[in-house]
Amino acid sequence: MGRDVEVPETVVRRLPIYVRALAQLEAEGVKTISSLELGRYIGVTAAQIRKDLSYFGEFGKQGRGYEVSHLLGEIKRILGLTRVWPMVVVGAGRLGQAIASYDGFKPRGFEVVAVFDNDPRKVGQRVGHLVIQDVTELPETVRALNVKIGIVAVPAAEAQKVANLMVDAGIRAVLNYAPTALHVPEGIRVEDVDPVAILQSLTYYLVNAGDSDPVRAGAAAPAGDSTPEL
Amino acid sequence: MGRDVEVPETVVRRLPIYVRALAQLEAEGVKTISSLELGRYIGVTAAQIRKDLSYFGEFGKQGRGYEVSHLLGEIKRILGLTRVWPMVVVGAGRLGQAIASYDGFKPRGFEVVAVFDNDPRKVGQRVGHLVIQDVTELPETVRALNVKIGIVAVPAAEAQKVANLMVDAGIRAVLNYAPTALHVPEGIRVEDVDPVAILQSLTYYLVNAGDSDPVRAGAAAPAGDSTPEL
Repeated sequence: MGRDVEVPETVVRRLPIYVRALAQLEAEGVKTISSLELGRYIGVTAAQIRKDLSYFGEFGKQGRGYEVSHLLGEIKRILGLTRVWPMVVVGAGRLGQAIASYDGFKPRGFEVVAVFDNDPRKVGQRVGHLVIQDVTELPETVRALNVKIGIVAVPAAEAQKVANLMVDAGIRAVLNYAPTALHVPEGIRVEDVDPVAILQSLTYYLVNAGDSDPVRAGAAAPAGDSTPEL
Repeated sequence: MGRDVEVPETVVRRLPIYVRALAQLEAEGVKTISSLELGRYIGVTAAQIRKDLSYFGEFGKQGRGYEVSHLLGEIKRILGLTRVWPMVVVGAGRLGQAIASYDGFKPRGFEVVAVFDNDPRKVGQRVGHLVIQDVTELPETVRALNVKIGIVAVPAAEAQKVANLMVDAGIRAVLNYAPTALHVPEGIRVEDVDPVAILQSLTYYLVNAGDSDPVRAGAAAPAGDSTPEL
């Protein structure tokens, strides 16, 4: 599209939150919403919303707010969510199985199409409607189904090896559940899902809430409006 | 503690990543590390690391790098990770059960001490070493065990009600797995775990890979399969 301005990563990370909120509002029958209301709903300022959306064009009419369905459709288009993205999962332990059978992907644009493990006792077993495949079959499956997204759900010690395998097979984006930093070639994107890391930042506020000014310590939450919700 | 400068939220969010990396390095027997090496390991710049740590004092010696164990200990102290934090989980579905029996919490400072559901068929059943309790027992348990962290693992439609219950009981920090925005009083912190939202930001880069960077564009060419949008 040849946009002049590169969209900041923090903005890209907030767009899915807008999608989530707008989809919810649409389901509730809300037709239009002001940036102020949408901001309150999500927990960011109205100015933030207007600024975020300004990277992509004009979506609201002055004084009229946003048309919920239209804005939802536009942001989904921007994020590439007008299709369903196939994904592969490597690791068929408790976590991998929960991911592979999670029913919240499909309504939001994703589908696990294959799950792999290197444990011969697991290979051949069913997870939902999928059969666990041997991890050596990953390259062929990824190419055959033109999969671009891989989910790493193996222990930390095996995660890099799995990531390498994925990248070699053509995976371009990795969602990493292993609590370790993955190294991938330039052009490949990795995002970590590490709930414990999130908890560890929450405890910072718990131990630092009481010390100086309890009100201010608490207010640190809304004050962090320059950072994404995720 | 009485620091003059408020630590930006983005910095607080990075500290757990440092903890994870330093713990890994320590386990590998690494004694000292430069900010450059640590940055490479984590995927941030050396300058970023120095700046982040500067909020908390002096940790490295000029030209000598950081002592891994010492830095790890200090950051854990800053984050309040010198103790184990008890947590309650509400929602004993597939996700809630996976969370309640996840063995990765304890080594990193957390422990699920109770799990609740409102489904009488689930109450009384075991999850790991815990027995699922009726959600009406939550306030008493939270107070008795002095729990400050709650995990929401219920469907979106029930999440706000659960959050209210938690906050009323004394919970100060909420990890929210429900794909919906929770509203809590000032002073209470909420963090969302929404892997689908992360995936939705990854797809942005998949569909936009082709336009700006020619190297990426070439490599991502196959990604243009059925993604004409943008």
